[in-house]
Amino acid sequence: MSGKISGEAAFIGGYLAPLATLPGALGFEDDCAFLEPAPGQALVFKTDPIRAGVHFFADDGAADIAFKALAVNVSDLAAKAARPVAYLMSVSFPEAPAEAWATDFARGLGEAQEAFGLSLIGGDTDRADGPLSISITVVGEVPAGRMIQRGTAMPGDRLVVSGTLGAAAVGLQVRAGSAASDDQALQEAGARYLRPRPRLGLRAALRRYARAAMDLSDGLIKDAGRMAAASGCAVALDWPSVPVDPAAGLMAAGDDQALRKLATAHGDDYEILAAVPPDAVAPFIALAAAGGVTCTEIGQCRAGSGVTLHSADGADVTPSVAGYDHF
Amino acid sequence: MSGKISGEAAFIGGYLAPLATLPGALGFEDDCAFLEPAPGQALVFKTDPIRAGVHFFADDGAADIAFKALAVNVSDLAAKAARPVAYLMSVSFPEAPAEAWATDFARGLGEAQEAFGLSLIGGDTDRADGPLSISITVVGEVPAGRMIQRGTAMPGDRLVVSGTLGAAAVGLQVRAGSAASDDQALQEAGARYLRPRPRLGLRAALRRYARAAMDLSDGLIKDAGRMAAASGCAVALDWPSVPVDPAAGLMAAGDDQALRKLATAHGDDYEILAAVPPDAVAPFIALAAAGGVTCTEIGQCRAGSGVTLHSADGADVTPSVAGYDHF
Repeated sequence: MSGKISGEAAFIGGYLAPLATLPGALGFEDDCAFLEPAPGQALVFKTDPIRAGVHFFADDGAADIAFKALAVNVSDLAAKAARPVAYLMSVSFPEAPAEAWATDFARGLGEAQEAFGLSLIGGDTDRADGPLSISITVVGEVPAGRMIQRGTAMPGDRLVVSGTLGAAAVGLQVRAGSAASDDQALQEAGARYLRPRPRLGLRAALRRYARAAMDLSDGLIKDAGRMAAASGCAVALDWPSVPVDPAAGLMAAGDDQALRKLATAHGDDYEILAAVPPDAVAPFIALAAAGGVTCTEIGQCRAGSGVTLHSADGADVTPSVAGYDHF
Repeated sequence: MSGKISGEAAFIGGYLAPLATLPGALGFEDDCAFLEPAPGQALVFKTDPIRAGVHFFADDGAADIAFKALAVNVSDLAAKAARPVAYLMSVSFPEAPAEAWATDFARGLGEAQEAFGLSLIGGDTDRADGPLSISITVVGEVPAGRMIQRGTAMPGDRLVVSGTLGAAAVGLQVRAGSAASDDQALQEAGARYLRPRPRLGLRAALRRYARAAMDLSDGLIKDAGRMAAASGCAVALDWPSVPVDPAAGLMAAGDDQALRKLATAHGDDYEILAAVPPDAVAPFIALAAAGGVTCTEIGQCRAGSGVTLHSADGADVTPSVAGYDHF
């Protein structure tokens, strides 16, 4: 199990082909794949590559790398209330992978497929100098005309967020070795950084009640700013209401400014931010809970532009750091 | 126009957003895009990344790089008799592109979109060490159940190929400067290497008459071997019938073995190989001609396995080189 994969065909045929479980994948025996959407369904698309040194560590476990590559894309489908269906994947290796690595990588993909309910339908691999890079395009399904957009929030809508924020920022530090990991909350944060959990359990609540939604990949402040800009409104967030992950609380150790940065100015949490009409907040939260997802009201949309975070006494405590730009 | 692009958002918003001409692209204001296929239509998918130093030269014109990135993917759709609809694109830059380069790149994409009839619906850019890399996923449309596959050829089927073979191999040498380019045929070969022409004009002929088809991206011998393997039959090709590009004839200068290698053992021609029942050869060629594509019968499928190239006297003249493996 320590040899190198002997070629592109061996990697695709030996490791990836078993993941092609849909008929339209044709077992990778064709150049193309097909999907036949049910009548009245629209397909939803997203592509979000991940790369060693930026989105994960080159020495992360291959199964975790694979899982994360798929999870970050499925998270976008979850925010659109789409059912994951299929994905295509291009992998660029700096050198031919070892057999053990390829086995783990395929296992991680398989675990993610099983968790999210989709199938590999196509892909390509090659070798190039530079970091390991995995480029996935996911395809989901929603009733036609019903994809939840991020630019459709309206002044007066309440903002609701799933889960807790700040765990991934702490998890990154745990993974990088700059934070101790002896506490269970910190260990969980590390696991969450490695394996994000797309909030597919929100689908029913989003479809029924949400006016707009998006996933939080670049931090609450930056992403809420995008929702505000796309919707042509302002977003006001209430800091005391933000569901801060216990791991972020541990790490901030009482420094409220540090805590705000961890919870609102770092990426990779993959929670979902939804804009909901005021009278739909309670039923949204109830239906989300029935889907296994705890949600919290954290603010509202107003006339205007921009995003602000307010303390209990109304002071503006918006962190100045605004997420990550890839250029 | 000589400054660097100032960020990911500037590149996407300033240069790529005008290419998002379909409603489902939402002007890149959302994280996801959607497509609503017409009733009875299946969607066809392909992803094929291209990378500087492997598929193009880093100093090729940005418009040509962009055009080729899209063309090599659309070629697969053409072979499946699919109508191009949309694409998603991830670009990895070794450094932030100059404004002039980004302008040319967007222009080349726009020219390809116009030529092939599809629209950008999503994408992502980032910076990473390593070569410029462009990963495109194309989406096409065919009537449900009608995607032409490559594994469905049958013994007795005739093999038909579009256009001419060997031009791209010569074009690569012209582009690399190892061949003179004073002859018009060589100049055309160079242009064809830079800007492949997907054979979308074959769609009607393929849908009506083809039993199987694929595009020739890795050379006739290797790709016909894939069709044979997927179909569970053998392929016998008649070398005197192979439509050799005039540029390959010029370069081979009377060396028949060199000519065979150029025409059948090099990639990037992006012609289409189709398997057609014997009585459909003439109408296939006629309908292809009506679509503007010249086709030639070059061999047949037989019981057995493998691919062979025969000279006029029946000798086996199959080149030993079998295309390119990315590992």
